[in-house]
Amino acid sequence: MTTFFGRGVVSGVALGRIKRPAQDLTAYLDRYRPGSVEEETSRLEQALAGAKEQLQALLSGPAVDDTLSAIMEAHVMMLDDPGLVASIMEKIREGDSAPRSVLAACEAYAAQFAALDDPYLRERSADIRDIGRRVAGLLLGVDGEGEKARGMADSGVVLCASDMEPSAVAAYPPGQLQALLLGQGSTTSHAVIIAKAQGIVTVVGLGEAVDQIPDGAEVIVDGASGEVRLSPDEKERNAVLVRIAAQAERRRKDLAEATLPAVTRDGVKVQLAANIGSPGEWEKARALGAEGVGLFRSEFLFMERDALPSEEEQFAAYRQAAEGCGGHLCVIRTLDIGGDKPLAHLAIGHEDNPFLGWRAIRISLERTDLFRTQLKAILRAGCYGKVALMLPMVISVGEIRQARAILTEAAEELAREGREFAANVPVGIMVETPAAAATASLLAPACDFFSIGTNDLVQYTLAVDRGNPKVAPLYNHFHPAVLRLIDATIQAARQQGIWVGMCGEMAGDPLAAPLLVGMGIDELSMSAPSIPQVKAVIRSLSVSEAQKVRKAVLAMEDAAAIRAYLEKWRQSAAR
Amino acid sequence: MTTFFGRGVVSGVALGRIKRPAQDLTAYLDRYRPGSVEEETSRLEQALAGAKEQLQALLSGPAVDDTLSAIMEAHVMMLDDPGLVASIMEKIREGDSAPRSVLAACEAYAAQFAALDDPYLRERSADIRDIGRRVAGLLLGVDGEGEKARGMADSGVVLCASDMEPSAVAAYPPGQLQALLLGQGSTTSHAVIIAKAQGIVTVVGLGEAVDQIPDGAEVIVDGASGEVRLSPDEKERNAVLVRIAAQAERRRKDLAEATLPAVTRDGVKVQLAANIGSPGEWEKARALGAEGVGLFRSEFLFMERDALPSEEEQFAAYRQAAEGCGGHLCVIRTLDIGGDKPLAHLAIGHEDNPFLGWRAIRISLERTDLFRTQLKAILRAGCYGKVALMLPMVISVGEIRQARAILTEAAEELAREGREFAANVPVGIMVETPAAAATASLLAPACDFFSIGTNDLVQYTLAVDRGNPKVAPLYNHFHPAVLRLIDATIQAARQQGIWVGMCGEMAGDPLAAPLLVGMGIDELSMSAPSIPQVKAVIRSLSVSEAQKVRKAVLAMEDAAAIRAYLEKWRQSAAR
Repeated sequence: MTTFFGRGVVSGVALGRIKRPAQDLTAYLDRYRPGSVEEETSRLEQALAGAKEQLQALLSGPAVDDTLSAIMEAHVMMLDDPGLVASIMEKIREGDSAPRSVLAACEAYAAQFAALDDPYLRERSADIRDIGRRVAGLLLGVDGEGEKARGMADSGVVLCASDMEPSAVAAYPPGQLQALLLGQGSTTSHAVIIAKAQGIVTVVGLGEAVDQIPDGAEVIVDGASGEVRLSPDEKERNAVLVRIAAQAERRRKDLAEATLPAVTRDGVKVQLAANIGSPGEWEKARALGAEGVGLFRSEFLFMERDALPSEEEQFAAYRQAAEGCGGHLCVIRTLDIGGDKPLAHLAIGHEDNPFLGWRAIRISLERTDLFRTQLKAILRAGCYGKVALMLPMVISVGEIRQARAILTEAAEELAREGREFAANVPVGIMVETPAAAATASLLAPACDFFSIGTNDLVQYTLAVDRGNPKVAPLYNHFHPAVLRLIDATIQAARQQGIWVGMCGEMAGDPLAAPLLVGMGIDELSMSAPSIPQVKAVIRSLSVSEAQKVRKAVLAMEDAAAIRAYLEKWRQSAAR
Repeated sequence: MTTFFGRGVVSGVALGRIKRPAQDLTAYLDRYRPGSVEEETSRLEQALAGAKEQLQALLSGPAVDDTLSAIMEAHVMMLDDPGLVASIMEKIREGDSAPRSVLAACEAYAAQFAALDDPYLRERSADIRDIGRRVAGLLLGVDGEGEKARGMADSGVVLCASDMEPSAVAAYPPGQLQALLLGQGSTTSHAVIIAKAQGIVTVVGLGEAVDQIPDGAEVIVDGASGEVRLSPDEKERNAVLVRIAAQAERRRKDLAEATLPAVTRDGVKVQLAANIGSPGEWEKARALGAEGVGLFRSEFLFMERDALPSEEEQFAAYRQAAEGCGGHLCVIRTLDIGGDKPLAHLAIGHEDNPFLGWRAIRISLERTDLFRTQLKAILRAGCYGKVALMLPMVISVGEIRQARAILTEAAEELAREGREFAANVPVGIMVETPAAAATASLLAPACDFFSIGTNDLVQYTLAVDRGNPKVAPLYNHFHPAVLRLIDATIQAARQQGIWVGMCGEMAGDPLAAPLLVGMGIDELSMSAPSIPQVKAVIRSLSVSEAQKVRKAVLAMEDAAAIRAYLEKWRQSAAR
């Protein structure tokens, strides 16, 4: 029996049979009988319209959420791209059949994106191939419904590929797709974003291992440890079925209790908040038990558009978020671009190591025009709810002072303009560089709160780009160095008397919760679907137990031992 | 008066007038009278031969060292590149003049290199342009000697450009070139390597500021702080002249005392060792006062060649180094490739963030064939001197255990083969990731020594790629987070009873020496030219004073204040 290791992105255990979504269209292409150029053109037009209809139907379907709908809407727009349609038409005029023209034109277009330096744009190549397959499928009589029906025949599907088109994931109704395995290591591809939103067990960064996993093979996938076990024996299979049943039962129970308060058995409250990317996501988060927003990403206002958003436009969005949260706190993070999140209208240029480059607060403190506009919008939104402001990628107290000085200017400008604004919006920082964590005691006096961003903190501390499949297995938030830096940050905040939260992926890991509570964390902010299970863990433990967990874990020397200890602890606590 | 900030690479203060090395050949090109294709071909052949002669002359000149000669030899080889010569010839046949053909062909060739992802190869484009200018200069009657003579007219030259051809720096005899200012932030370009070897005050990463510094302007350059002050007034000018005189006097004195022992006033010995890149560099280092090699880079055996070096070839080189050091310790670092040091014969592939990717020990533990061969060669060399083995980029104790297991295998293989080898070569690690520094107490029991690699440690801790001009000014080894991590590493080593050294650039910074001695560092390994001044600092201080420096500095909150304190301390100590 073979075991592969990748990086777990969505936790949980799953059992199923490998299915490769890249359905081979060759046989259909060989059978296809092309007509005249006029006929092929007319068939193409029908297929384009048909694809649009399919996408619209998906958009109005029951399983759709904000994430999926944004992606599908982008696909509808691509179908209208005049450049793409023109190059398909050119190939038809050159004598190719309509489906071959569609596939070739989309492949050429996708290859252009795939060759770009920018990782964000590079991933859009999967979307273009997806569109091509959808349209070609309609031309060949292999439509999406057919694919879906074949998928439905088996309820234990584990999709596996180097990379995946988002609709390959979206095609499965909830409950049918058990797990997603990807060779590439990025967590920002649309396929992964959909899997996260739907809570599908996901392991990425498997590299070339995906080619060694045979189609149809049964696998056990552990989305927490990133382990994929091929062809389990009867005993293992039974053991995992028991775990899956227990997991399902626990999820049902957690969901039922999601809106109870997050209080430990001995009465200590931990704030459980949601990470959201647009004001519209708050309602779903509240239903899942969120008590505020611990990370409101402001990037959605800036991405995939040509011009910078005005103060008014930003104000409207922040106000909507602040009002939506009611009496709960809404922490707005200032622009966190650069690195893996570049902007078309801000020339960052090629960087050899964008993660170690010009990004986040570094851009804001240089492009003060852009920063001041955002700060003004946030200060104004502060009149409509409990708003806090959070600075990303801080490495020194000087940066916080500079940012506060610009905030003062923004407030003075608003006062001169006679606008209403909140004078006392709390200012905190993301602790996401080793520099900030190692000097937390120096930074705390300049801050109203800390929020630990584990994703970047782990990457910098371990010198591991988790999007790189060659090193993705080294990425681990239970690495003792990461835990020591987190602990030091929390202790520094407590010493200073400011609250300290966490908004990286670790905050949503139920295994981490006892440890973090033991360290004294005040708030955990995560993607909404993780809230119920983390809340259940917190409600099940006492602070004194958690402090013992902290002490035991901080004495351990390796991440695997720490994870094993926390898993064992959780199992014994569940009994 | 304007001040610009870059990153200081070679410390010292300098005064001089800006000179741009990119001499405009346009006027000469316009005056040039081309002959027939045959004539132009014959002139080209003469110029190629002449360029080779010039380089050979440079190679046998008095100012040449290993660094310079390796670069010049590479240039000689480029002149023989059949592809380059063929594309020059093609342009001549198309009717262009010989000098225009040379410049165009080299520019096209250089542009290909400049477009590569690999930063190492990208920098070779400056070498190719350099070759083109040299050959075209000969064709146009603007030869290198002429350039040199013009340079000599002014003894206070500060070269300034976005990037620079290595021969522009090498053209100046020692003492004439005062400083080097570069827009680009890389420290691995050949121009910077030559400047380092010759101790020329150097500031890189000035970005677009280099375009704002007018030709002929007088500037004060501080190679420690990275500050460039334009058009100083009389008072500043006089103050800096006094500093330069004192600096020269101090250098003379330091050099005269370079081979005295590095002992503090109260009798504590600090080992001062050299970082070397090939066995031949040791003799010069010893003359400058080195007591052993703290970092022997093994990469030179692997770079710029098609096949991997055999065990025999590696053994010969390591043995030469070990024997050369006599009774002194020679610390051999195992292969530190990937990131900015890729190998042609090892497919690393494109990485979005190579500094956070597959490199150093991560490659060695996967390519165990390659690693075992190197370990065998090192164990065998251990019979010919005091050899130690150092692992780069370690983040966990598991990696050290894996490496030690492969070392045991290597020893067993050697025993089976009946070869002579040293059984007890000490094994240490580079502490150069925040992970290693933050868990130094966990790693120390698995190590025989630590050597702190500040270059990478600073980059990861601050999330700053110092080769990126947009963020280079943030790079600073006096950042309090870096100092806390270094201090924790040293205390963990002392607790465990193992020796702890430093081999990053900070080790050669005389300002840092009192602080590091106060922390309890056992060894400082640096590029040889820095040894005399660091030794002088150590001989001038007492450990109890140094401990007070440590205490004061660790309480400070910002890098600029720390540097100012250390400068003030050094000035008062010098009196």
